[in-house]
Parts: sequence; C-alpha cells; structure tokens
Amino acid sequence: MGYRLASRKTKKDNTLVTIGDVVVGGEQLTVIAGPCAVENRDRYIQIALQLKKIGVQMLRGGAFKPRTSPYAFQGLAEEGLDILAEARRITGLPVVTEVMDTRDVETVARYADVIQIGSRNMQNFVLLKEVGRVSKPVLLKRGLSATIEEWLMAAEYVMAEGNSQVIMCERGIRTFETHTRNTLDISAIPAIKHLSHLPVIADPSHAAGKWGMVSPLSKAAVAAGADGLLIEVHPCPDEALCDGGQSLTPANFADLINEIVPVADAVGRKCQYQTKSLVKKSVI
Amino acid sequence: MGYRLASRKTKKDNTLVTIGDVVVGGEQLTVIAGPCAVENRDRYIQIALQLKKIGVQMLRGGAFKPRTSPYAFQGLAEEGLDILAEARRITGLPVVTEVMDTRDVETVARYADVIQIGSRNMQNFVLLKEVGRVSKPVLLKRGLSATIEEWLMAAEYVMAEGNSQVIMCERGIRTFETHTRNTLDISAIPAIKHLSHLPVIADPSHAAGKWGMVSPLSKAAVAAGADGLLIEVHPCPDEALCDGGQSLTPANFADLINEIVPVADAVGRKCQYQTKSLVKKSVI
Amino acid sequence: MGYRLASRKTKKDNTLVTIGDVVVGGEQLTVIAGPCAVENRDRYIQIALQLKKIGVQMLRGGAFKPRTSPYAFQGLAEEGLDILAEARRITGLPVVTEVMDTRDVETVARYADVIQIGSRNMQNFVLLKEVGRVSKPVLLKRGLSATIEEWLMAAEYVMAEGNSQVIMCERGIRTFETHTRNTLDISAIPAIKHLSHLPVIADPSHAAGKWGMVSPLSKAAVAAGADGLLIEVHPCPDEALCDGGQSLTPANFADLINEIVPVADAVGRKCQYQTKSLVKKSVI
Amino acid sequence: MGYRLASRKTKKDNTLVTIGDVVVGGEQLTVIAGPCAVENRDRYIQIALQLKKIGVQMLRGGAFKPRTSPYAFQGLAEEGLDILAEARRITGLPVVTEVMDTRDVETVARYADVIQIGSRNMQNFVLLKEVGRVSKPVLLKRGLSATIEEWLMAAEYVMAEGNSQVIMCERGIRTFETHTRNTLDISAIPAIKHLSHLPVIADPSHAAGKWGMVSPLSKAAVAAGADGLLIEVHPCPDEALCDGGQSLTPANFADLINEIVPVADAVGRKCQYQTKSLVKKSVI
Repeated sequence: MGYRLASRKTKKDNTLVTIGDVVVGGEQLTVIAGPCAVENRDRYIQIALQLKKIGVQMLRGGAFKPRTSPYAFQGLAEEGLDILAEARRITGLPVVTEVMDTRDVETVARYADVIQIGSRNMQNFVLLKEVGRVSKPVLLKRGLSATIEEWLMAAEYVMAEGNSQVIMCERGIRTFETHTRNTLDISAIPAIKHLSHLPVIADPSHAAGKWGMVSPLSKAAVAAGADGLLIEVHPCPDEALCDGGQSLTPANFADLINEIVPVADAVGRKCQYQTKSLVKKSVI
Repeated sequence: MGYRLASRKTKKDNTLVTIGDVVVGGEQLTVIAGPCAVENRDRYIQIALQLKKIGVQMLRGGAFKPRTSPYAFQGLAEEGLDILAEARRITGLPVVTEVMDTRDVETVARYADVIQIGSRNMQNFVLLKEVGRVSKPVLLKRGLSATIEEWLMAAEYVMAEGNSQVIMCERGIRTFETHTRNTLDISAIPAIKHLSHLPVIADPSHAAGKWGMVSPLSKAAVAAGADGLLIEVHPCPDEALCDGGQSLTPANFADLINEIVPVADAVGRKCQYQTKSLVKKSVI
Repeated sequence: MGYRLASRKTKKDNTLVTIGDVVVGGEQLTVIAGPCAVENRDRYIQIALQLKKIGVQMLRGGAFKPRTSPYAFQGLAEEGLDILAEARRITGLPVVTEVMDTRDVETVARYADVIQIGSRNMQNFVLLKEVGRVSKPVLLKRGLSATIEEWLMAAEYVMAEGNSQVIMCERGIRTFETHTRNTLDISAIPAIKHLSHLPVIADPSHAAGKWGMVSPLSKAAVAAGADGLLIEVHPCPDEALCDGGQSLTPANFADLINEIVPVADAVGRKCQYQTKSLVKKSVI
Repeated sequence: MGYRLASRKTKKDNTLVTIGDVVVGGEQLTVIAGPCAVENRDRYIQIALQLKKIGVQMLRGGAFKPRTSPYAFQGLAEEGLDILAEARRITGLPVVTEVMDTRDVETVARYADVIQIGSRNMQNFVLLKEVGRVSKPVLLKRGLSATIEEWLMAAEYVMAEGNSQVIMCERGIRTFETHTRNTLDISAIPAIKHLSHLPVIADPSHAAGKWGMVSPLSKAAVAAGADGLLIEVHPCPDEALCDGGQSLTPANFADLINEIVPVADAVGRKCQYQTKSLVKKSVI
C-alpha cells in the first residue's frame, strides 16, 4: 500500500503549485523568508517590507508555535494571523503559516495562502486529512526521523483527500551528529524529484541551527535541484523569541541572495532579485 | 525552561497512577495486553476474556489507528470505542486506547480508562494540552526520535494543564539497525526512574516488531525496573489487520507471563497470574 | 555472501568458549571485570584481588587504549601486558585485553587469555584476520554503528581464518540520544542468540557511560539472555585515567553482583559469588 | 584535550595539499576519479586514459579493499599497487589508494601519491599514527558514525606525528534513512571549513550508493564549498567487482563534469575540463 498520487509513476510532469503570481516547482526559484514566529505587529510589518524589497516571493511567520517546552512562547495565535494578513495587504506577498490543530484548519486556511504542516506533525494523520480537504496549498515539512517513503506517504494523506497542491520541505533529520541542530539530508532533494512529481524546497535554517551555515546549505540545496528555499530572517536575531541563533539579519539575507543567484543560474534556474548594492543602500 | 512538574527534584516520591483496582508505579507489575487494533466485536470480546483469565490487569486496543499509509485500515473509530466499553463491562478490566485528534479527546475520555498518546503524536502539543485538561490518566508513548528530555517535556505539557496522572511508555527508538523494527532503549527505563517520579512501562512488541523477541525484551524491561508492560496479543496474528508479525498468540502470551513472574520476583516486584498449566487447560 | 560459520543454520548447538576453568556460553553466567585501562602495577593487582574475592571469573584491563584524542593516555603497552600477566599469576584468573595493531597480535596473544577487538576496530578486517590465525579466544565488541549482520560478518572474518572461539559483546550503539553515552541495544542479545551459535555478553559500562545505570542494564542484559557481563570497576573512579564516570567502585560492584544473582537465577543461569556481607567485611 | 594542529584557531590560512601539479584546497576544484577497486591491468589502464582525457586530476583505485564479507573480493594487493604505478606512468596523473594495515604503510607510501584512510579505519589509531610518520599526503575519510569533532581528532592523530598534509573527505554518515546507502552530511563541508584549515572534499558515490544521485550531490558539495570530489567511475558498472551500482560510466562522468563546471564557477572555483562534445567524440 504505497503512495500513488504522489508518485512520479502516476504523473510524469512536475506539479506546479501556484500561489497568486508565485509558481513553485517551475523554472523560477522560490524564496520564502521571515522570522520563525510573528512576535508583534510593527516588527513583522517592518521585516516584511525589507524582505519585499530584497525580492522575496513569499513571507513566513508562525502564529501557532510548536515548542518543546510548555513554558516557551507559544505564538500569538489568531492575533498573529491578523498581522500576517496585514503584512500581505501591505506587501502584496502571499504568506505561509503553520497549523497544529484540526480545529484551527478552517481559520488558518482563511488567513494563509499556504498552510504549513510542521515536522512534529508530519505523521499527525488527522491533521493531514483535514488540510487535504481545504483548497489551499500545503507546505509539508519532513519529520525529524521520517524516511523519504513515510514523508511521501504523508503527502499521500493530503492528496487522498483531494488536495494535490503539496510542497515538500526538507528541513534536516535527526542523527547522532551534534555540531548542527539537525542533518540536512541533501539527498532527499534529488530523491523526491526522482520518486515524485511534487515540488521540493529546503529549509537550511532549521537544519543547521546556526546562521553561519545557512548560506552554504542554501547554495547546496539549489545546486541539488531544490525548487525553493525557506529562510529565517529576523530584524534582531538576538532578541528573537525563538530560534534566534539560526536567523539571518536582513543584511546577511541580502548577501545570501547575492550568492544564490549565480548558483541558481548555473543549474538553469531563474531568479530575479535586487542587487546587493541596492539592498544595502535603500533597505537596511 | 526545563520540565519541573515531571521532575524527581520537584517530587521525590514515585507517582502512583490509579485506575480502578490497578495501581501503576507501585510494587505490583502492571501488564496491559490486547490486539493492536479493535477489529470486530466478537474477536475482541473473545481475546479480552482470554487475557482476563491469564491475569492481565488492563486491556489495550486501538479504535483510532495512526497508519503510515492512508490506504491502510484506520480503525473502527467510535464503534471501536463501544466494543472496548463492552469488553470492560464483561471482564471488569480497565481499557486503554489512543486518541489522535483534539476533537475526539472528550469522546475518548468518556469511554477509556486510560488515554494513550501515540509515538507520532508525542510532540502534538495541542493534543497534549487537551488530554492535560481531562481527568483520565494518560499513557504517553515516547516519540520515534524523541530524546528522553523531550519526552519528559511532553509529559510536562500534560501536567502543566493540571493532569498529573501520566504513565511513560518506552516503545523503541529509530536507529540505523534494521533487524528490529525499532531499537528498545532499555536505558530509558532507569533514566526516567532517575529523572522523574512518573511510572514507566515498556512496549516490547512495537520495539521489536517480531513476536519471537517479545519475551526476552519483556524480561529485560522488568529487570531494568519497568513498572509494567504493554504487549500485543492477537487470537490469530496472521489475520491481524495491523502489526500481526509482532503479536503473540494467547498461548505464547501465557508462556511469556510464566517467564516474567520469576524475573519480576527477582527485582522485588509482585505479580499474580494464572500458572501455565491452568492457562493451557482452561483458556486456550 | 552472508556469514556461514557464525550462523545458527550451520551449527545448531551453542558454541562454548572455554578459557581455563571458565566456560562462556554455558549455564554459568560469566562476569568479567576490571578497570578500563591498566594504569599502574600496584593499583591493578589490588583491584584484581578484590574482584577475585567478589567472585569475578575473568579480569579485564587495557594495555593498548584506543582514545579519541592523541593527547589522552594511550595505555602502558607491553608494560601493561606484564602487569596483566602478574595479576593472572597472583589471582589465577584469566585476563582479557585489547589488541589494536596487527603487529601486536602475536605479543598480545602470548600474554592474554582472551584477545579483545574493540568497537572502533570491528571492521578492521586485517586485524580480524590476524586474530583469526591465533589459538586464543576473541572477544568481539560490536562497532558503534554496526548492524547485527555486519557484526556477525566480522565474526565470520575471524572464523574464516580458523579461529571459532568468538565471544560477541554488545556495548551500545550510536543513536541520537545524548542522555547515555551510547544506546545499549538490548535486542541484539536475543538476535545473536537466534541468528548465531556464538556466545554473547553485554558491556553496560560503555553503553551507559554512567555508573549509576550499570546495575539496571546488567540485570536487563542477563534477563534478555546474555551469557555474561563485562563491567568496569576501578578502585577510585574519580582518579581513573579513562572512563572514570562509568566505573563502579568495588563496593558498588559487589552490590551489583548481589542484585544480579537472583535475576540470573530467574532465567535459569547459575552464578556463585560471595555474598554482600562477606564482601563488605573482608574485601573493601 | 581537543584538536589543536587541525584547528583553524591555530592556523588561520587554508592548508594547501600539493601533489605534483595538483593543489588541493586552493582556487582550483580537484576531481579524483576511478573505479572502486583495481580489478585488472588492462581495464584500469583503459579507464585511467579515459579519465585523463576528460580532465581528471587524480586517479583512485583500491588495491586493498575493506569488504563487509570475508568472502567478497579483497583486492589485488601489491599487484594492484603495481597497476596503479603503471597508470601513473602512462597518464602522468597522481594516484590515491587505501591502506588498511600498519604493516603495509611503507609499501603503499612507496607506490601511492596520496594514502587513503577508509571510513572503517577512521579510528584505527595505530594506522593513523603510522601514516602520520610518512611524507605522503593522507586522504582521511569520515567514519560512518563519526562526529565532526572525532573526525578532526583523527586528523590530529596524523598531524601529531608530523604529517600535516591531510585532506578530509565527507562520504556520508549512517542514519535511519534507507533510500540512500548513507546520508551525505553536506553541512560537514562548511563545518570543516569553519573549524579547520584543512581541505575537505566529498565522495558522493559512497554516500548515495546510487549512480543517478552522484551528479546532484556533486553539485551540492561544490556549491557548499568542497575543495574537490572523489567519484567512482567504472567502464562497465554492471561487471564491477564492488560498488557497481554507484559507479558512473565514463560517458555519465563526462556529463557530470559538464554540469559541475558552471556550479564551480558560480562559487568562485576554477576548473578546466574537456567539453562534453570533445569527450563524446574522442574518448568514449
């Protein structure tokens, strides 16, 4: 009882996931960026505008945050969704945000352009079924210790309910290595491309857990064939309520974009961004 | 922001979780058994009666089944809960069953004596909070790749909502080894005993994935200090709708009990069961 | 091209490895103990005598030490072998010690009663072949990330050269868990018993990396069917030149023996040791 | 007692390892290729000439093969070294080959331009010391389950003996994922660059275990900052005595080079190779 709808055998052509003007899985590399969590309105709007100027195509930000400790910041919930909606209005960029509870799927689907299923919920099958019943694209993060097959099977759960707009996201797996937070399984990118027609992007920020590694891992992911990147950017990483250590400043993010452009070009991907000098002068 | 309520530092004495006449975490070893899934009424009642005669203290059986594939048997849902309730009525034994959806917590809590959180939902934080608000004990399975600290933090989520009746359940972790389905982390048992006051039991069936290993792993778990065992028993493992390969027949389960009794005794645990000869003659 | 000589299919009866009066793999549980490294003559002779009184059947001690850092104590080399030989003369107990270099096999074989192949050398195939050509039994530790099949294949390397006296030793595998130094793969014990006729023992000291866990893991290993235990004991763990944190004091080791005896008995194993009171009064 | 000689803190500038005309660790990307094992003279010379025409800078080929099974092809030993020497004479390219036994270090050092320490021997400390005493560069493959710190510590063993010409080689680590043979830890490349001054290359062939993945992983490694690549190429992968499934044909290898050139260029690396058309016409 393997995956069928997600399989390349069933559908040979790449699936293109369309979100407004953005197409994930096509020639254009898709860059999604933003802070881990939506922390407050002004800060989020500010970073959203900076990211827009740098040329980001989609905004990310968590309103519901899955945190290891119950005493850690759990997100702003619906207030966070409101802020995301406002950021979209102001920037014109679509937003992706996580849903954790089947009871929130309808609400999140109303606000978000793309619904994210986080790593810890990759095998939360009731949640997968529920997002399979809405008409919004789903960003499906790979579970911490999910095999590639289990990950595709999770996509199958969504697709079996009628929603074929699934974007796979490799974000590092759990191994014995402790130097990095997780181990980015770079092989998963060509593997998904081979086994499935679904687009696949990489989240080097969560994989590395160290902002200094985000740039080389981003370049690696693009070179390996990723359709996009999901990058954590925070105006003041030191003050971030979560995952500050792996967040880039807008300036560092602009540098990263400048480094990625030629790599994308080398593997036949298009991407149009502000040049570094413009970013440096006008934005930050 | 570590765990506090779950910590041995906060509460020195062992927590005893009481379910009717059953006390988990005390001198008595608690044996919970049953098939992986509730498949149909007659078969479940039959095995429940057999297990009762062998001396099992609690029944298990899944009504909501988390399956890797959306095309696999997903459980009988509320019909399954009805069957469990009937089995309890007939045998007088309490029942433990899994909940997967926040929307089902109230219903499952109405039927079950103990609510199980499965491995794949160990970091489904909204579900943990929800079961933290009901007054039924929670059996918290360790996640496939959860560290001991993350597992205790999951218990903390439940306890922080007011429910301190948490039973930890080690069921094997994911490693590189493929001979067994998972790797039973036997060290987790003394680790939990050292770090926490919560009771801890072992599920050797899911860990091994092979019925022939259930007996040695059960003895190991008891010898290492486990407060109980969760064992899969199925009348006809070959016909099981899930996890047949790791299920014991009632006869093999009776053998296992006979082997465990002296080990439990050797580590100062009490357990009273039918002797093998009685089981063989009268039950099976 | 699987293992043949090591397979239970080739030889149904358990292999008994005989070292003087000691038989590994039979009814009697074999307990091997000693410090990680031979550090100096007087200290080693002292601990050897204490262990003899507690009832240990074989002594361990490293003369050649595989250390992660080149700047850590590397062992006393041949001087250490001399001390081991003297300890044997005085106590009458056989000794097991590690060989790391093909050039040292002949020398080590002259001094030792059992030659140990350490975890890091489990796939040092030239070394395996070399110890396969001597007439001394080989204690083959499982590699940090070796599958059970690879481990048996390593035994096959030794046996294919003519030496069938191989004792397998489970000492913990590398996983994501950091609470313990390694993860004792308790399932490996019944697995080896099932797949092979070779005896298998456990080394809970290296697995746990914490002396407080050695006792529960030892009991677990015996309950799971291990033919013996390899335990680190050091007169003053705080002063040990290596692995002090996982070493038991002689007094704690005597306690451990007292706890193991009833478990061994419960699974049909014989073992005769001094009782605790005797140990406490006369030895320490 | 950490690594000092291998640390970037001790030496800020990148170490350049010079082998004849080849410099590893500089601007130029170093591509090393060849079959897993030297199987026979004619076949090796033929592939060596093809690789030379494609523009490879160094040849690889195993004379001593570490094989999981004692019944698998173990290499041609000194006869293989002779063939490598002849290939060097004919092509003018330096050769890298593995040493497994301390007793063979002198011999291998006489034949080889670079001595390889294989994954399984990464913590064979006596072998590390021995190659630390010769004047040939050492290619140090990462152990299957070695942390980055342990790997650098292994380099330290070589360097502490006086040989500072160490090339690190990431070749995949062992994880739970089974789709690939190993998991290429792409993060290890920027990690080594950050922590150490030593050059680091990648072996995508062993990591993936599937020839179809070698190209995307190679591009990823180069994009992440690798100083070179170690690629398995075999004239007839189906007939290879070892690792055929992960070997490229010369034609596929030429394609790979054509794909790598623009990526190397995008990250500021130089590499001069034959163009695809030339390769296709004149070589294969």
